[in-house]
Amino acid sequence: MYMQEERPLILISNDDGYMAKGVNDLAEMAVCFGDVIVVAPDKGRSGSAMAITSHEPVRVKLIRETDRIKIYSCTGSPVDCVKLAFDAIVPRKPALVLSGINHGDNSAVNVHYSGTMGIAMEGTMKGVPSIGVSSCYTQHDAPFENLRPYVEKLIRFALDGKLPKGTCLNVNAPACSEFKGMKLCRMGMGEWYNEWEEHTHPRGGSYYWLTGEFCSSDGDDETTDKWAINHGYVAVTPIRLDMTDYDFGLSAVESLDCV
Amino acid sequence: MYMQEERPLILISNDDGYMAKGVNDLAEMAVCFGDVIVVAPDKGRSGSAMAITSHEPVRVKLIRETDRIKIYSCTGSPVDCVKLAFDAIVPRKPALVLSGINHGDNSAVNVHYSGTMGIAMEGTMKGVPSIGVSSCYTQHDAPFENLRPYVEKLIRFALDGKLPKGTCLNVNAPACSEFKGMKLCRMGMGEWYNEWEEHTHPRGGSYYWLTGEFCSSDGDDETTDKWAINHGYVAVTPIRLDMTDYDFGLSAVESLDCV
Repeated sequence: MYMQEERPLILISNDDGYMAKGVNDLAEMAVCFGDVIVVAPDKGRSGSAMAITSHEPVRVKLIRETDRIKIYSCTGSPVDCVKLAFDAIVPRKPALVLSGINHGDNSAVNVHYSGTMGIAMEGTMKGVPSIGVSSCYTQHDAPFENLRPYVEKLIRFALDGKLPKGTCLNVNAPACSEFKGMKLCRMGMGEWYNEWEEHTHPRGGSYYWLTGEFCSSDGDDETTDKWAINHGYVAVTPIRLDMTDYDFGLSAVESLDCV
Repeated sequence: MYMQEERPLILISNDDGYMAKGVNDLAEMAVCFGDVIVVAPDKGRSGSAMAITSHEPVRVKLIRETDRIKIYSCTGSPVDCVKLAFDAIVPRKPALVLSGINHGDNSAVNVHYSGTMGIAMEGTMKGVPSIGVSSCYTQHDAPFENLRPYVEKLIRFALDGKLPKGTCLNVNAPACSEFKGMKLCRMGMGEWYNEWEEHTHPRGGSYYWLTGEFCSSDGDDETTDKWAINHGYVAVTPIRLDMTDYDFGLSAVESLDCV
């Protein structure tokens, strides 16, 4: 019993929902390192970013429980799942927050829209080392097993206290059966365009579906996460909670007559 | 006609909904500088962060139109409003994206949860100077008129091209009738706790309402936005789209065996 309480507690969530293969695979990879609690949305919540639910209440339900893995579903957003886990579910402070494995790429500026990375940011805000893991495989039966040695290395790194305070990791794997290794990257820049498809309602009027194409603005810059996954590497991008632009000029202060 | 087409186009959104006083006041302040198009959610969408709507379609409706202000409501998230405006509504590229005036503080790490700042980030991603404006006044008839000279100064600053590419502004005003001036700040750090209130359903089971208290971890640090608004200043915090932690150590690269 004593030994069991000493095992690190690993909190896991995702934005594809508790039934997704990715989060269940991640729980199986993490359980070698500690006790695992999964608190994940009750349905797909892709593109939730760091949204929180303030206008309606949130419910949580224990789905299943084994010796070392407990899985809960929650009606809230991915970030709600983390907040509720910390406040009402975990028996002790988690040593690590993991997110994913997301069925889909979250590289470049897409961090900002990503529920997967919202979870990692929230864990970071709670002062706990946090890692979001995404794969370019989007299908529901995606093969994530080849990511295991990478995930294990990242978990060990985080549990060893090597992740700086206020920084989490955005990990993105290409859709390959073999990787060339792990590459430390910067967040790629770029823009979405042709984002909406207009449809006509049978009773009149239009409605729009979000779609779009992503256009990188980095060219062939080898330092970006987008380049890394396009070239067979598992991209590791350190993401800061503090978004202040410290280079914002003094000239600006003058034009704005700031103190 | 020629002159009218030369006026800058200013796109405005918010997360309190198109009927909120804040967004209508902001449109009135902005119209001195250009033609204004408001595309705002059809209801309150606070805490939407940069969430996007991928699982259901989005609709948009023209609510009213004057010579220089057009107001649309949209069933999507704040970021959807911006995306839809760019793709399907604006007659030419906006020169400026404004967000707010939010009925409530968005300082410190709350940028991450804020729909108001989600809008400004989205505008920045589209390559357009963007500013989010929030006030600590939360009531629906909040008096925002004393913010006018500050908003005007900020609009002029942005239209003059003085905002660096990839950086937007998070502006937060205290609930005072008079301000001490504008202060350039960094994003305050801190944590929410006691975040959920548990209630019992009459037919059994629990549900949770998101609530909580914010605890700053900056002490009395005068460089933060939180300090500024607590001391009567309008806080101006430059926010970067690129969240890469460029200080992430080489030692980390070694432990992770990165290339």
